[in-house]
Amino acid sequence: MTPTPPTIPETMRALLLTDQGPVLRRDLPTPRPRPGEALIRVRLAGICSTDLQLLAGYKGGRRGVLGHEFVGEVVAAPGGEEWLGRRVVGELNVGCGQCDLCRQGLEKHCRQRQSLGIIGRDGAFADYLTLPLANLHPVPEALPDEKAVFTEPLAAALQVLEQVAIRPSSRVYVLGDGRLGLLVAQAIHRTGCDLTAIGRHPEKLVILSRRGIPTAVVDNPPDFTRLAAHPADVVVEVTGSPGGFATALELLRPAGSLVLKSTFAASLADFPVSRLVVDEIQLVGSRCGPFPPALRLLLAGAVEVTALIHARYSLDDAVAALEHARRPGVLKVLIQP
Amino acid sequence: MTPTPPTIPETMRALLLTDQGPVLRRDLPTPRPRPGEALIRVRLAGICSTDLQLLAGYKGGRRGVLGHEFVGEVVAAPGGEEWLGRRVVGELNVGCGQCDLCRQGLEKHCRQRQSLGIIGRDGAFADYLTLPLANLHPVPEALPDEKAVFTEPLAAALQVLEQVAIRPSSRVYVLGDGRLGLLVAQAIHRTGCDLTAIGRHPEKLVILSRRGIPTAVVDNPPDFTRLAAHPADVVVEVTGSPGGFATALELLRPAGSLVLKSTFAASLADFPVSRLVVDEIQLVGSRCGPFPPALRLLLAGAVEVTALIHARYSLDDAVAALEHARRPGVLKVLIQP
Repeated sequence: MTPTPPTIPETMRALLLTDQGPVLRRDLPTPRPRPGEALIRVRLAGICSTDLQLLAGYKGGRRGVLGHEFVGEVVAAPGGEEWLGRRVVGELNVGCGQCDLCRQGLEKHCRQRQSLGIIGRDGAFADYLTLPLANLHPVPEALPDEKAVFTEPLAAALQVLEQVAIRPSSRVYVLGDGRLGLLVAQAIHRTGCDLTAIGRHPEKLVILSRRGIPTAVVDNPPDFTRLAAHPADVVVEVTGSPGGFATALELLRPAGSLVLKSTFAASLADFPVSRLVVDEIQLVGSRCGPFPPALRLLLAGAVEVTALIHARYSLDDAVAALEHARRPGVLKVLIQP
Repeated sequence: MTPTPPTIPETMRALLLTDQGPVLRRDLPTPRPRPGEALIRVRLAGICSTDLQLLAGYKGGRRGVLGHEFVGEVVAAPGGEEWLGRRVVGELNVGCGQCDLCRQGLEKHCRQRQSLGIIGRDGAFADYLTLPLANLHPVPEALPDEKAVFTEPLAAALQVLEQVAIRPSSRVYVLGDGRLGLLVAQAIHRTGCDLTAIGRHPEKLVILSRRGIPTAVVDNPPDFTRLAAHPADVVVEVTGSPGGFATALELLRPAGSLVLKSTFAASLADFPVSRLVVDEIQLVGSRCGPFPPALRLLLAGAVEVTALIHARYSLDDAVAALEHARRPGVLKVLIQP
């Protein structure tokens, strides 16, 4: 028996980034799914550092509805009726499907790609969004919304393990104790490696130490001498600050791998290329990751995410939610339509 | 029957880098091997770009005997008499053997390391040199000196394949047609990948095209538009010039690997880190490589090296040899004691 399709209103609420900054609109047209796409009613969305970066750069930057971390329910799916009523999470990148990169399976790097809430496709801080069915992953019934909403950032954390071989015998430093850093550390800890999570905030690192992950609190100004005396095979830079790169190099052994998760605006101006060559260092840029293992780990309760939730706002108060998320020391802020 | 040890003179000739530049000395004390080391009579040595860089930076730079590409004969080996009379090539890095890096098998990255003709140990532009027995590899009888002398640079070329997975289906660009570039291209070509060697010198690239390797000659100023329309999975930067890095990035697809072989002095000042992250690019610094496969390939005649020899000088004329090697367009210059 097909479930009765819910009534879909003509207009909806959404947090729109405009020339005047973020504005809550109540009269945006509800998007219409094209064949092969789903219309998804957003159940819960999360604010990520990328949203805050887009917000900070709104002058001359992107226009549109923000948000790419979400869990929702499929309410329309022309040509894909089996999805109706299902609770889903969705990958944010939509490739053109035609170019060389898409045909190599690199849709997320398609030069013509849309990225939900980031490039060319309105996002999840709204009552509704659309995504291709191919981007969707059903959420297991036992996984509540407030955990499922972490699928996208946990997938991004797992991408480190897709890109760099971390062995049980590896020494690994995760540098940065923000939203993403805490997920990266937990993902990497599961390899059994000799991990230390490094940050400035004892109140955040305790989320990790409670789970048996060794942590190191650095002062301000930081002193990395003790850690640098035991350089790591792999350093993951998740500080989101320009200085993180130099510190990460200081903590890395020759022939080691430095994974960069921060899209900060810094350049490598002071970095001598010759050191990269002589020390045979590997620099790895890392962005979005695989959803299925993220869902498996969340379902298994293998990664602590609810302790990262610092606040929950109604979509009506989405502007206040963004303000809250921007405050120093704040971890995950959720928006509920 | 042990061969009669040759008479070893008290003093020898060597090309010494001094405060006044390179000087041929005829009165340097012949080095004495310590237990576990061999005294090697140099049969033939090759000039590498690193030698020319050390030469260019001699003011305030290194002092000592240059040269790290050689083939020679063991004439003394206290505690390792089975090596006496053997023709050998030798790896240049000598680790302390005690530190964490050495114990992880990363002797070549030891912070206290010596590098033959580069750091802390006199080199191969001399009648004699010493190296630990552990650094030596016997040269097969069928391999003549003028091929064996390419073992070290060919090993450095092969290091690219040790660090990055190049598949038969990979598209690869080797950027730079100098001494090392021509060896890198030949090493990579053997994978069966879709390789194009890119350079400015038709007279050098012909060495590759004669062996069936596709080449692309770029003009000055170069135009990479056509190549950039088909970006590669892997780009190896061997230009030795600061501009090579930006070009290599232009030719690389997202999620691709850029291998840096040049120890040029440039910084990454104009390189936005965010591109590294968003495009998930992997940067890999690459230096010295494994000798055994280099010897196997040379013995099999699988890599053309003799066509790279542009000149051969007596050690007496080593200063002129360096001058020759510095001229634009010159490939390998050999020095014979």
